[in-house]
This record gives sequence, structure tokens and C-alpha cells, in this order.
Amino acid sequence: MAEPSSERPARPLALTLGEPAGIGPDITIAAWLRRRELDLPAFYLLGDEALIARRAKALGADVRIAAVGAGEAAAAFADALPVVATGERATAEPGKPDASSAPAALASIRQAVADVREGRAAAVVTNPIAKSVLYRAGFRHPGHTEYLAEFAAVDGRVPQPVMMLWSPRLAVVPVTIHVSVREALAQLTSELIVSTVRIVAAELQSRFGITKPRIAVSGLNPHAGEDGSLGHEEQTIIAPALKLLRNDGIEARGPLPADTMFHEAARNTYDCAVCMYHDQALIPIKTVAFDDAVNVTLGLPFIRTSPDHGTAFDIAGTGKANPASLIAALRLASRMAAATL
Amino acid sequence: MAEPSSERPARPLALTLGEPAGIGPDITIAAWLRRRELDLPAFYLLGDEALIARRAKALGADVRIAAVGAGEAAAAFADALPVVATGERATAEPGKPDASSAPAALASIRQAVADVREGRAAAVVTNPIAKSVLYRAGFRHPGHTEYLAEFAAVDGRVPQPVMMLWSPRLAVVPVTIHVSVREALAQLTSELIVSTVRIVAAELQSRFGITKPRIAVSGLNPHAGEDGSLGHEEQTIIAPALKLLRNDGIEARGPLPADTMFHEAARNTYDCAVCMYHDQALIPIKTVAFDDAVNVTLGLPFIRTSPDHGTAFDIAGTGKANPASLIAALRLASRMAAATL
Repeated sequence: MAEPSSERPARPLALTLGEPAGIGPDITIAAWLRRRELDLPAFYLLGDEALIARRAKALGADVRIAAVGAGEAAAAFADALPVVATGERATAEPGKPDASSAPAALASIRQAVADVREGRAAAVVTNPIAKSVLYRAGFRHPGHTEYLAEFAAVDGRVPQPVMMLWSPRLAVVPVTIHVSVREALAQLTSELIVSTVRIVAAELQSRFGITKPRIAVSGLNPHAGEDGSLGHEEQTIIAPALKLLRNDGIEARGPLPADTMFHEAARNTYDCAVCMYHDQALIPIKTVAFDDAVNVTLGLPFIRTSPDHGTAFDIAGTGKANPASLIAALRLASRMAAATL
Repeated sequence: MAEPSSERPARPLALTLGEPAGIGPDITIAAWLRRRELDLPAFYLLGDEALIARRAKALGADVRIAAVGAGEAAAAFADALPVVATGERATAEPGKPDASSAPAALASIRQAVADVREGRAAAVVTNPIAKSVLYRAGFRHPGHTEYLAEFAAVDGRVPQPVMMLWSPRLAVVPVTIHVSVREALAQLTSELIVSTVRIVAAELQSRFGITKPRIAVSGLNPHAGEDGSLGHEEQTIIAPALKLLRNDGIEARGPLPADTMFHEAARNTYDCAVCMYHDQALIPIKTVAFDDAVNVTLGLPFIRTSPDHGTAFDIAGTGKANPASLIAALRLASRMAAATL
């Protein structure tokens, strides 16, 4: 299993607001309240102090809020939840996104990226956004991750973001992601597998401190195609990609039958499983780590983690939101920042 | 979770030999040796007494063998491993299938089916066969299950066998099975989902004693298609099938996002998960029940269970084979037989 350093970075984590009408404010408050008990790394929220104060009141939570600049956040963290203003007010009530939602959510993301790129923050941790709300406000990116990748473009060249789901028990990366199974078959190429595994291998070294990462690569078909009798993509697409990767010195095993890759003894033989499509990767990790899996974006010039759930409008403001995944995301971002060379 | 009765049937279980060069004899001996400790139901092996004696010697196992007829097997079980002769000698050495393998394996299956259909046995439990060995000997069926289904044909009409993987923690049924992902997309129809779920619902009632079975049906695509933005099969194929099933009074929920169906809290809300393709069903059960999952064939006029692994030629005769899945298959067959109306 991929396990980054347990050291702490010197700088705090920049946490985005996410959708203000969702559970982002709730879990941010809940995580801060448990900072001592869980020895959490220092973080600050990029958002609107008034919104957080209202949400804390709605939740009956005793939270001191410190309106600070990013530079003061680490020192303030022990005694108050540090909130760094983005200049956008967020007026939305829990469960009811309004016209303020998109500008407030996007300003928070922009400022978090600026903070980490300019050295004020160690990493970006993002609260969940509601894509449909952003689309109505004119947002034109497929999602959160692609928006972050565009910030990282150099000379107009956008890096390939790679989605990893990480937990202490299993880390997985799907090669094709949010597309239908039919479209995943069309998108799957040796080139995509090679570029994905290269990014995974490089970041397991540079951000997880694993000298020689062990990567397990799944087949596409049942029994990894059973020598071609249950499909040919293993022979025509996946095996050639693995050959190229091994020639580069990357320890990539496969194509492995996906059904026998994820039990406990199998998981202990690799640091990350690279899978061919969404459910092949997401079924096992959500089966063994439903509450505390973390979404990590690899391939960007900065560290970004995120809780592995959505805005949960139906329970925003009720106190029912579980902060476990955000807490795991904060911890992992901190450990990755400390491990980064 | 589907949990059949814990009562015992009056008749013994008929256990097939499987591939004689594989681990079938090893795990049969290992299971019998633990009969008292684990309070196992009585079973008899349909095979060749001399082969079992040789294998016991190779394993250094202290096994008394009783060459009996099926009618004496239950009484003999406490003190000896009952072996009912099939008339076919099995000469193969561990790991080395020979010309005797196919006739011995097939005779054992034929006789087990005859025993259960004629009332001498309560259920059929099959040891693993090697399809490649049978094919070389002229076997013309796609596999073990289809061979059994042909025995059950009435007026030339072969019943639809349905593969269930069962464990105490999760039961799953894939609608399409041993085909490539591309072929699974082609095979998936509302009719196939309806006929499969009907068989699952009927047998959960008749053989597992569940009055009102709760069936969870997965989507095909990530997030169950996310309202059509990640694929249309949920809307065009799966939802219409579920509507038909519910009109028949079957409690079938879905299409559900596959990645969030299998964590512990989700599993506790249904008796069986019906999935669209092999890995969607097999990944979760092999992740949570790698050693003790049981393969159950539904849709036949008799009970058939099987360990969920292959012949493992590389460890046959070494003592390394784990009998856990065979033991689970024997226990489940016994409980299903006792629950059957």
C-alpha cells in the first residue's frame, strides 16, 4: 500500500468552500472541532466568514472564527477556525444554492490554487461542488479536476489529471473515468495506459516517498481475457503498454484478473491498482473504505485532495454530515506535502 | 443477506470427483478430516477409491475409506470417507491430467445428477474440473454449469442456469457471465435481466426460505448512468426490466450505482445483488469473501453448489490446498436442501 510520510509540512492547507449550500461548511466545522482529538494538520477555509458563522449557529456548534490572511492561518488554527476572505459573499441557505453559489465556489478554488502556487499553502483540499449549479452559471469545464488542470496549463498545454482514490487499505486509479462503459472501450488505448501509469509511478515516488512503486494493472475483461478467449484488449492494448512501462524501469504487473486483485492478501503486494474503467476501480475501494476514501488528483504541479462524496444537499445544515472523508483528505494532503521533495 | 435454513437434510450430499489431477481429491480429504470439528453434513465422493487412497498417502493423511453405495454413505460418514464407485478408474497423478481424467470426471457428474434426481442424494456439490482437459477429450459444452443444465432439459428445452456467488456477507448474480465486456454490452437485454431476476427471486424463496426476497440491481455505467449523461442502458434496458419485475410483485431495487452497493451498510439492505457483467459482481464478493465464497447454480431442478476456485494443478498433492470454499459449498448445499419446500 502507498503510505506517504507522517511528517507535517511547514505551511497550512488551503481548503476550498465548495458549494456553499452543500455540506462543505458543515464538515469543515466538524473537522476543525476535532482538530485536537485527531491532531489534524493546520488548514484554513477560503470563503465567507459570515456564511460559516451562520452555519455554525444552525448546527449549534461552538466555533470561534478568525478572519485572517493565509500567512496568519497556521498560528490561528489551534484556537479558531481560520477563514481567509475571497471577496465573494455566499448567501445560500443549506440545501438551496442561490446566485451567489457559483462565484463564491469558483473564487475559492482560484484563490486556493494561487495560494499553493505562490507558497502560502502546502496543498489544496477541495470541498464538493455541485456541477449542475456551476453549469447554470456558465461554467464550461467537465468538472472540478479539469478546472484545476487548466490553472496548471503551461503555454496553453493542459496537464493530464489522473484521479486516484486513496485509503489506508487500497489505492486505485481508473484509466478511463466518467464515461459510459461503451465509451470507455472506445477511449482505452495503450498510450492512455502508459501516460497514466507514468504519472502514478512518478507521483508515488515524489509525493508518497515510495522509492520503487509497485503498480498492479488490471485486465479489461473477465479473467483478464483468459488468453484471448474472453476478449482481446489484454493482448492488443494492455500487454503492449505494460511492456513499454517495464522497459522504462517501472514495476507494473499485469494484466491481472480484476476479481482477484482486491482481497487483503492481494492488496498487500502493490502500492496502487490501475484499472481500465470507473467501476472496476471504484467498486473495490468503496467496498473496503466507504467512509474514509480520499480523492487525489495526480499530474498537477501541486497537491490536491478532496473528500470522496458530493454536496449532499439533503443533509446540509442538519448535523448529519460525516466529516470522515474530509478529515482523511486533510491528513493525506498534509502527509503528501511533507513527503514531497 | 440471503441465509438459508440451518436444518439438516435427511440424505447425504453427492460430491463429484472433479479433475482427478487437480486439488479436488485433496480438499475432499481435508474437508472430511474436519467433519467433527466443523460438524459438516454427510457427503460421499463419486469417484475411484484407489485414487483417493493414493492421494491420502501422498498427503500423509490418515483417512479410512469406505467403498459403499449411495444408500450406505450417510451411516458410513462418521468413521470413513464414503466413496461410491463410478466404474471409471482415475489414474492421473497430481498436476498431470491423463487419458483417464475426462471419463472419470464426467462419469462422476452424470452419476451425481442421477443420484440427486432419483432421491439418493440431497444435492450435488461439484469439485473443480479442467475445461481444457475435457475439450481435448471431445467435451462440447461451454462449461460445467451448461453440462449440468443439459441433464435437466425437458423435451429438449434446456433451463437457463443462473450463476450465484454466495458468502455469508454478500450474494451476487451476474446477468452476463463469461464473455468479454464488449460482448456483455451486446448480450444485455431487458429479457435477460427479467428472466435472471425471476429465477433469483423464486429460488431465494424456495431454496433459501426467504419469504420476500430483496434484490438490488446495479446499473451498467458509472453512477448508474447519471440520468443518461454517462450512458443510456439504465434508461433503455434496466429500468424497463425492473418495472416489469415490480409489476410481478418482485422487490427489485435499481438501477443502483455499482460502486456504492457493496459496503457493509449497503449489503445489509438486500438479499442478493444482481449485476450486469462478470467483474461488477465478482470484484465485490472476491474482495470481501475471497476464501469462502461458494458458486451456486440456480435455475436447475436440483441444488448444485461448488467451490469458487479452479483445479490448482500447481499445488495438487502438496497439502497446500485450502478446503474453505469446498467446506462452505457443502454447508450451503445442506442448508439449501433442508430449506427446500
